[in-house]
Amino acid sequence: MGLTKYYTPTKVIFGEGALSQLPSLVKGYKKVLVHYGSDRIRKNGLFDQVTSLLEEAGAKWIPLGGVVPNPRLSLVREGIALCRKEGVDLVLAIGGGSVMDSAKCIGYGVSYDGDVWDFYSQKATPQASLPTACVLTMAAAGSEMSDSSVITNEDGWLKRGCNSDVCRPRFAILDPTLTYTLPPYQTAAATVDIMMHTMERYFTSGESLALTDNLATALLRTVMEAGEAALRKGDDKKARSDLMWASSLSHNGLMAMGNDTRGDWACHQLEHELSGMFDVAHGAGLAAIWPSWARYCIARDPSRFAKLGCSIFSLKPSGDMAADAKATVEAFEDFCTRIGMPIRISGLGIDLTEEQIDQLAHKCSFEGKRTIGAYLKLDEAAMREVYRAAK
Amino acid sequence: MGLTKYYTPTKVIFGEGALSQLPSLVKGYKKVLVHYGSDRIRKNGLFDQVTSLLEEAGAKWIPLGGVVPNPRLSLVREGIALCRKEGVDLVLAIGGGSVMDSAKCIGYGVSYDGDVWDFYSQKATPQASLPTACVLTMAAAGSEMSDSSVITNEDGWLKRGCNSDVCRPRFAILDPTLTYTLPPYQTAAATVDIMMHTMERYFTSGESLALTDNLATALLRTVMEAGEAALRKGDDKKARSDLMWASSLSHNGLMAMGNDTRGDWACHQLEHELSGMFDVAHGAGLAAIWPSWARYCIARDPSRFAKLGCSIFSLKPSGDMAADAKATVEAFEDFCTRIGMPIRISGLGIDLTEEQIDQLAHKCSFEGKRTIGAYLKLDEAAMREVYRAAK
Repeated sequence: MGLTKYYTPTKVIFGEGALSQLPSLVKGYKKVLVHYGSDRIRKNGLFDQVTSLLEEAGAKWIPLGGVVPNPRLSLVREGIALCRKEGVDLVLAIGGGSVMDSAKCIGYGVSYDGDVWDFYSQKATPQASLPTACVLTMAAAGSEMSDSSVITNEDGWLKRGCNSDVCRPRFAILDPTLTYTLPPYQTAAATVDIMMHTMERYFTSGESLALTDNLATALLRTVMEAGEAALRKGDDKKARSDLMWASSLSHNGLMAMGNDTRGDWACHQLEHELSGMFDVAHGAGLAAIWPSWARYCIARDPSRFAKLGCSIFSLKPSGDMAADAKATVEAFEDFCTRIGMPIRISGLGIDLTEEQIDQLAHKCSFEGKRTIGAYLKLDEAAMREVYRAAK
Repeated sequence: MGLTKYYTPTKVIFGEGALSQLPSLVKGYKKVLVHYGSDRIRKNGLFDQVTSLLEEAGAKWIPLGGVVPNPRLSLVREGIALCRKEGVDLVLAIGGGSVMDSAKCIGYGVSYDGDVWDFYSQKATPQASLPTACVLTMAAAGSEMSDSSVITNEDGWLKRGCNSDVCRPRFAILDPTLTYTLPPYQTAAATVDIMMHTMERYFTSGESLALTDNLATALLRTVMEAGEAALRKGDDKKARSDLMWASSLSHNGLMAMGNDTRGDWACHQLEHELSGMFDVAHGAGLAAIWPSWARYCIARDPSRFAKLGCSIFSLKPSGDMAADAKATVEAFEDFCTRIGMPIRISGLGIDLTEEQIDQLAHKCSFEGKRTIGAYLKLDEAAMREVYRAAK
C-alpha cells in the first residue's frame, strides 16, 4: 500500500433549511459572484432567497447565470473577467456539478496569470484558487466536496478534468428538499453517477483497505435503494437525503482511502469523450459504457467484479469467479434497466459510426499518447474495442 | 431531521512511511512543541525521527513529555506556559488520544487569557486554538480528527470533555506500522473504544440517515474482524490499517451525519467518572458499562438495539424485538469476552461500594443538575442504577 492523502476541508451544512446558515458562512466575504445555470432558480425563488441572505450578511453580489450541463470554457472566461473587474472574493455556485465545476474553474482562473485551460490540458498545476462554495440543488456529481472540476472547451469540444486540493469548496449547503423536483431521468442518471464515483475507486490496481471496501459497498447498496425510492416518490425525504450525502461522500476521497491507486477512472475518461461529442447526461453515459468496460476487464481479472457483486447484489459465490463477475455485470445492467438508464450507447439515441469510434478513442488517448485505467490499462486500441462493444 | 454540520479539515496522510510527509506539512511553522507520553518513543527512535524531520523543514522544537493515560491538567498548564515563553506556533502530539487531547488543551489555553479549565467546566466556549497536529502511535480515541478533548483535573479528579471545531488538528500522520507493538490488552481496549465512538452516535434519539446507519454497521463489522486479527498477529498490516483509519472515522463526525442528535454519549459520561476515580483504560471501562446501560435502555425502547444486532452480529430477526435487542447485548458481551475485555466493572479489578456508586452518579450528574444520554435520558437515580447493574 502506498500513501493516501485524505483532505476534505469543506464545511458541510446538511438538512432541511440548511440555507439559514448562509449568513454565518459568508461572514468576512465582501463581494460574491452568484453563479448558476438556467432561470429555474430565478423562478422558484431560490435565487432571491440566497441573495437576500447575502445582503443580510453585508455581502455585495453580482450574478452570472447560463451554465449548461458539460459546462463551457467561454462562460468561465467571462466569469474570470467579471470577478477581476468587480473584485469578487467568493464564487458561490447555486446548482449541481456543472455549476460547481464552472465556479471552480473561475476560481482557478482568477488566481492565475496565464490561460486557465493550461490546468485542464495539463500544461500547469493550480497553486491557488479564489474561494468557492455551493448551494446544492442536484445531488450527483459530488463536486461540492471534491477536488475535481471538468470543463468543456468549445474549441475542439475537448472535455477535460483538473484535480487539485486548492479547489475544494469552502462550504456546501446541502438541503435535500431542494432536490425533490429533479425529474425521473435526471434522478436515475444521478443515481448512476453517484454509484460510479465509488465504483471507479473500488477498481484499484493493487491492495485495498477492507474498511474502504466495506464502506463502499454499504454506500452502493444504500444508493441503489434510495435511487429507486426517489423514482417512486420524488419528495421522499429519506431517499433524497441519502442520495445527497452519498453524492458528497462518493467523490470526496473517502472511497479510495488506503487503496493503492485513486481508482480506475477509465469509464469516466471514455464517457468524457462521448459527452464532449454528443452532450449526454454524464450518469447516463457512464451507465452506457460501464458494462462493456467491465466485460473487457473481466477477461483479464474477474476478482474485484465477483467480490463487488456478492457485496452489493447479494449474489451467492458460485465457486467460479468469472461466472460471478459476469453475473455482477448482468445485475448492474438489470438495475440500470429498472431505473430507466441505458446499458449501451445506442440507448442514448446515438448510433456510433466506426469513424466516430476511431475519433473518440483517438481523442481519449490524447492521440495515442496516453493509456487510461488502473485496474486494467487501456491503450487506444482497447478504448476502440470498449466503445465498439458499448455501441 | 435537524441540521448537521460536518467539518473535518484535518489533512490526513495514511500508510506505511507517512512520516516522510512531515517536512511539507510543517512548512511555515517556526517553533514546534513536541508533546508526548512515556520515554518509549525516545527509545524506539521515533522521537529522533520526528525532530530530525522538523529540523530538516527549518522548524525549531522543544520537547514536553510525560502525558499519562487520562491526561492531566497540571501538565497542560506547564505546556501553556512553555508555549508562551518559547513562542510556539504548533503543538505536535506524538502518541495516541491522551497526548492529542493534552495538545488540544494546550492549544486552547495559549489562545485564551483566562483559565483553560473554563472550557471543560462549561464556563466558556473556545474561540480559537494554537494549531495542533499529530503523529499517531495508537489507534483508538480518534482524537486525531475529532473536535473533542478530555482532560482530568487533579483538583477533585474531575474528568471533563470539551468539544469545539477550533481544536480539530491541522494534520494527522497515520502510519499503521507504528501500532504493531501495541500490547494485546491495549489493542482490545482500542477495538472497543473505536466501536463505542460509532455506537454512541448510532443511538440517536430521533431519525437517522440510512446511509449513516449502513456506514456505521460496515465500520463496526470491519473493526471487530480487524481487532481479532490484530490480537492474533500484532503486525497484521491490513488489520492495523483498518483499525487506524476506523479510529479516525469513528470520531470525526461521519457516523452521526444526518442523525437527529450527535448520539447518546451516556456510556462515555459514566465511564469518564469511573476512569477519573480509578484510572482505567477508557475502552475497557466502556466495555464494562455498555451492557448494563443497554439493558437499562432496552426496557424502554429495544428498536435500535435489535437493528444493530441484526446488522453487525448477523442475528436473524426473531419477530420479538425485545428478544433481538437482548441477543444483541449478549453478542456484544461474547465479543468482549473473546477479546479479553471486561463486561462488568468487577472485570476491571474494581469492587465498587454503594458509597462509590453514589459518588460516581453524583459527580456524573453534576450534583444532580444534569441528565445524560439522548436515546434515553438518565438522571442521577438512573445513573446509580446503571452503575449498580454494571458492578
